[in-house]
Amino acid sequence: MRRFASEKSRIILAHRRNLYSAAQNSTSPLYSQRFSQQPHLCSSFLQRFFNTAPSPNSSSSTDSMANDYSSTPVSVDSINPKVLECEYAVRGEIVTLAQRLQQELKDNPGSHPFDEILYCNIGNPHSLSQQPITFFREVLALCDHPAILDRSETQGLFSADSIERAFQILDQIPGRATGAYSHSQGIKGLRDTIAAGIEARDGFPADPNDIFLTDGASPAVHMMMQLLIRSKNDGIFCPIPQYPLYSASIALHGGTLVPYYLDEATGWGMEISELKNQLESARSNGINVRALVVINPGNPTGQVLAEDNQRQIVDFCKKEGLVLLADEVYQENIYVPDKQFHSFKKVARSMGYGEKDISLVSFQSVSKGYYGECGKRGGYMEITGFSPEVRQQIYKVASVNLCSNISGQILASLIMNPPKVGDESYESYTAEKDGILSSMARRAKKLEEAFNSLEGVTCNRAEGAMYLFPRILLPKKAIEAAKSVNKAPDTYYVSRLLEATGIVFVPGSGFGQVSGTWHVRSTILPQEDRIEAVVSRFTKFHKEFMDEFRD
Amino acid sequence: MRRFASEKSRIILAHRRNLYSAAQNSTSPLYSQRFSQQPHLCSSFLQRFFNTAPSPNSSSSTDSMANDYSSTPVSVDSINPKVLECEYAVRGEIVTLAQRLQQELKDNPGSHPFDEILYCNIGNPHSLSQQPITFFREVLALCDHPAILDRSETQGLFSADSIERAFQILDQIPGRATGAYSHSQGIKGLRDTIAAGIEARDGFPADPNDIFLTDGASPAVHMMMQLLIRSKNDGIFCPIPQYPLYSASIALHGGTLVPYYLDEATGWGMEISELKNQLESARSNGINVRALVVINPGNPTGQVLAEDNQRQIVDFCKKEGLVLLADEVYQENIYVPDKQFHSFKKVARSMGYGEKDISLVSFQSVSKGYYGECGKRGGYMEITGFSPEVRQQIYKVASVNLCSNISGQILASLIMNPPKVGDESYESYTAEKDGILSSMARRAKKLEEAFNSLEGVTCNRAEGAMYLFPRILLPKKAIEAAKSVNKAPDTYYVSRLLEATGIVFVPGSGFGQVSGTWHVRSTILPQEDRIEAVVSRFTKFHKEFMDEFRD
Repeated sequence: MRRFASEKSRIILAHRRNLYSAAQNSTSPLYSQRFSQQPHLCSSFLQRFFNTAPSPNSSSSTDSMANDYSSTPVSVDSINPKVLECEYAVRGEIVTLAQRLQQELKDNPGSHPFDEILYCNIGNPHSLSQQPITFFREVLALCDHPAILDRSETQGLFSADSIERAFQILDQIPGRATGAYSHSQGIKGLRDTIAAGIEARDGFPADPNDIFLTDGASPAVHMMMQLLIRSKNDGIFCPIPQYPLYSASIALHGGTLVPYYLDEATGWGMEISELKNQLESARSNGINVRALVVINPGNPTGQVLAEDNQRQIVDFCKKEGLVLLADEVYQENIYVPDKQFHSFKKVARSMGYGEKDISLVSFQSVSKGYYGECGKRGGYMEITGFSPEVRQQIYKVASVNLCSNISGQILASLIMNPPKVGDESYESYTAEKDGILSSMARRAKKLEEAFNSLEGVTCNRAEGAMYLFPRILLPKKAIEAAKSVNKAPDTYYVSRLLEATGIVFVPGSGFGQVSGTWHVRSTILPQEDRIEAVVSRFTKFHKEFMDEFRD
Repeated sequence: MRRFASEKSRIILAHRRNLYSAAQNSTSPLYSQRFSQQPHLCSSFLQRFFNTAPSPNSSSSTDSMANDYSSTPVSVDSINPKVLECEYAVRGEIVTLAQRLQQELKDNPGSHPFDEILYCNIGNPHSLSQQPITFFREVLALCDHPAILDRSETQGLFSADSIERAFQILDQIPGRATGAYSHSQGIKGLRDTIAAGIEARDGFPADPNDIFLTDGASPAVHMMMQLLIRSKNDGIFCPIPQYPLYSASIALHGGTLVPYYLDEATGWGMEISELKNQLESARSNGINVRALVVINPGNPTGQVLAEDNQRQIVDFCKKEGLVLLADEVYQENIYVPDKQFHSFKKVARSMGYGEKDISLVSFQSVSKGYYGECGKRGGYMEITGFSPEVRQQIYKVASVNLCSNISGQILASLIMNPPKVGDESYESYTAEKDGILSSMARRAKKLEEAFNSLEGVTCNRAEGAMYLFPRILLPKKAIEAAKSVNKAPDTYYVSRLLEATGIVFVPGSGFGQVSGTWHVRSTILPQEDRIEAVVSRFTKFHKEFMDEFRD
């Protein structure tokens, strides 16, 4: 098997080689295979998704530099190997390179053939000038400084319904103390609001005691992985391509990622036959598959599941005894008229499955949707279908970190209960929301069309979420060039793109992809008046790249 | 060895018995010993601090109830045993009982011999009516809703320096986007401010690149445990008594807690001879001790280390190759004129140890001090003495969760750079700060004196932090009574106290204590005008308890 040398320090390489040889010599799922060209292995459940992403800055961290720390107790080969194994592509190698280029542009304007870095690597809308929803920020400010609620100047500065809402929320907090630790699941009154919002969305009951408020969705995902994973023999079923939080969390908790491949040819379809095959294969290799992760709308792939397909998935989990972990953080991000968001809980309940029939966790976040409040770190998970004993253990783990941040908790209640018809803010709120979502839809369409117009590039429809994941048919010569600099071909492609244009995409290898195919992930988030510039810079780069490497 | 049966469900008990027998039959450090009366074992590093704390509500979760969930895939005996093992006393059994009583009082006033629950279980000042520092909240509100910064009404509502500070902070945030994910270590400009605050405090340089902003101190502690712990054979040295975040985090990461006992007789002194003995004992049992946790000022014990003692600890860590994990979250909470806070970094630097001589992590939080902003979940760790390769791994783990919440980041910068002489807010800020700290000192003194006036109770001086940890000499009859209801004696004592008075203390067994001694932890946080009531209710209870059980 071919394996590219990594840029990483020799210590890490040696460590990985050890893992690798251990895997070769045993049936252990601790098996690393990178950039393999052998399809039969790549579709194996055993494939792990190492995406070694050293900081370009650290390539100078040679042994001599490490030696300066020889009298300190912690060397990189003495840390937890699960940490070494974990990778997180959306903030990996390419982003570190982008940060270096940005610094160089600042220190030395004109040093690169572009004058700004365009971060299309991460769903971080406010960093690309998306403005916050005014009503949400009004309420947050008032809850941060309740002393001004009764002042006359406040009436002139804040909308009447934001003042009213702040009073309502403060009344739900014991002692109005927004500076106190809350219940470890979050403030009960806010959970009541969220449960009511879920009920209104789904048409099925929701219980505030099922809600765990968290600092964004990531800690909730970690909590479930921590609960379910006991050893390498425990597997978590994940889509490929997947959002690398899942692979990172599974690695950190010492489990095995069991992949199921989304079908690019059918718009990233989720085939039950694929799930069955992969499950059988995993089980025959001694893996106890505990849960199935579904990301809907999809990240990085942007598809929205059809309700029929969701029913099949629910039935599959029910039949196979899998916990269904539903990443539903993009539930507000849908851009095509023929698709709608249906929560998995709604689907399961509409099939007649109740609390005791299926174990289901839904993750939601204030970072996505039209609000995009990534910096607030708010979110929740709704857990249903777990016994009181297991729920108590989940509560205990939540209690070790005391509680999530209260501003994030408040914001999570606001997104699930925004202004209603008749409220003073309703019109401006609706205008802001619709403006953001319709602009996202236009940007998604423009980028999708641009990708599809390029030689060797195909891109599925952007139905939802904030991403496009076009496939790029790289010429053999480009693949050889990548190999000669020890990079995966898609990493090479996005590095060249970044160096030529300042545009930051994430290589598909950070998310996983069918072996021998190469993709990039782009967000749809550059400002609307910059989309043309992104498209023309990207188009020009791609043409020149193809001219350089065309077979 | 005697071992009390737990109230926990049979499944958990069975699980624990298995762990226990496994340990009995091997030299594994996975060894649980609870309430042992055998001193030679209790001082062993092998002792783990299980503090089984089932929810009273769930004691009705019998097998028949569990059976209702028989068709769901996750049973309590199929979850990660590290989760089962972890306990977190400050939100454990007693607090769950308190919450139940509070609900009963609400549903049925007069149902208990008190009309309110007095939460003295956790350092959560705002929940006991401590008011936030006005300047901090002004700045947070303005950063949450920058749209009002230029409005004339704002001048009337906010202090001039809070407006100026908000502008400064917004200028440090790319695009002024408080709604964007930041750099995974936190916003660079805020880290600059924090580093400058550390320099001003210590008189030694601090580097913003050494700062990792986190959602409170807990995630920072978890991050270091995740980095250092590879298996049960890796040990973390912790004081006993300790704050149970450490035991919980070590359990969740699968390591071994290696205890060193603080000497109650010398005001919870930290003896180097004890450290040496315990280290030797751990090493002879095959434990690779990786780090030493010091909590200064102490939690739950309230002592402030003398600088001489800190130097000895630094030398010990240097000599033995241990990472020094310094929990310095109570650095502003010092109540006696003869003690001062010295950061371990300042002490190490003043001894001439530089970046490459000693590995040191300092944890700080916005939840403690005079600010007590627990709900904001802000904090940071300053890491020094780690090689670039190891730092890169720490950064990677931080990046998996993207970033900490921006309000918490801003607040962390504010506490390290509060108003200065000449600023409009300086006088009111100083008055608020001094008022809170002097009140805390008075409350600590009153409670300390009250404890010391009681039969069989001795309490060390409250030098710092927010807690007292009095020792209670329980009569043999009380210990027998506890045993008859399957409770640890100190848990029995605080349960009886809670049921009689509504006062919530945490039993010493949640923190660890020398075998055969019993303690309670009380915060010093009840409002000043309630302290007398707490003291008289507690005194009355204690007398009656002693009358009931006196040998």
